[in-house]
Amino acid sequence: MKKEIYQMMADRALAYYEKAGIALTEEEKNNIEVADFGLGDVERTGLELVVYINCDQYCAKEMVLLPYQTCPEHMHVTVGSQMGKQETFRCRFGKVYLYTEGEPTEKIGVTPPEGVYTVFHETVLLPGEQFTILPGTKHWFAAGQEGAVISEFSTHSDDATDIFTDPAIKRIPVIEEE
Amino acid sequence: MKKEIYQMMADRALAYYEKAGIALTEEEKNNIEVADFGLGDVERTGLELVVYINCDQYCAKEMVLLPYQTCPEHMHVTVGSQMGKQETFRCRFGKVYLYTEGEPTEKIGVTPPEGVYTVFHETVLLPGEQFTILPGTKHWFAAGQEGAVISEFSTHSDDATDIFTDPAIKRIPVIEEE
Repeated sequence: MKKEIYQMMADRALAYYEKAGIALTEEEKNNIEVADFGLGDVERTGLELVVYINCDQYCAKEMVLLPYQTCPEHMHVTVGSQMGKQETFRCRFGKVYLYTEGEPTEKIGVTPPEGVYTVFHETVLLPGEQFTILPGTKHWFAAGQEGAVISEFSTHSDDATDIFTDPAIKRIPVIEEE
Repeated sequence: MKKEIYQMMADRALAYYEKAGIALTEEEKNNIEVADFGLGDVERTGLELVVYINCDQYCAKEMVLLPYQTCPEHMHVTVGSQMGKQETFRCRFGKVYLYTEGEPTEKIGVTPPEGVYTVFHETVLLPGEQFTILPGTKHWFAAGQEGAVISEFSTHSDDATDIFTDPAIKRIPVIEEE
């Protein structure tokens, strides 16, 4: 990801945190994480986040999805003694379309971007609503037209061990310095 | 606690969640927890909260302190195989005065209510700021003059095993039906 793309996405995410009334420290504002998943189309396949705390047992993050931006399908698996992550998503602002394993929903609310998507059981989260995703469950999620801010409460997070359905995806972003 | 006191405190807490821009479901709004700690002076010694999730490994709550309201001194200890709770407080709104073990602060920012207080190392949290309290550490906390909303991210929570410095305290509130 080019540095100017990173900065543009970080700035847009900041505007969402502000709109949702979520206070961040200056340090957090200067270190927004932008995940482009290596697909080069961060507006459609991407996620912005701030990790508040990630210790051995628990983790809390605040995530932003821009309008129709999608976090691609993946799951959190057990690696060695580290159990796969269990996570609770709580919608703080906007509308979240969450897809998990199970009976496919007949007409889903968003169109996934290019990539590999295989689970289509839809749960829609409005502000104040939440859903817990069990370890080892494939899932992906997207915002509706006004974007979304989502709190994630979970067990320990280790993004590097996430398994994405699309083999082209790289979770850890690379910012190109110029 | 009389039912009308409970309702008044719950209503006041709701106004704080609203002011802080925190969305709750109707079910959450109808089930605000009001802790009076059995001291009969909930305006000074009390806490209002919503538990979002409390599973084996992690827990997330949203707490309200009314102006100068104080959560009295306690600690979370290991009971059997359940490790004492580790918790991260994140100030969302207002100003939090947090007291933990360590060098006593010379002139602390709030006056504790009647009761037993023994630790006076002050940390002040403004919106966006956070602090992690390790298991087995005595702590108490209070809001400043405009009240506070605090997110708590933690390991599993079991309020019934909290140890309060003041032996008069009962953590689990009893609502008197009339």
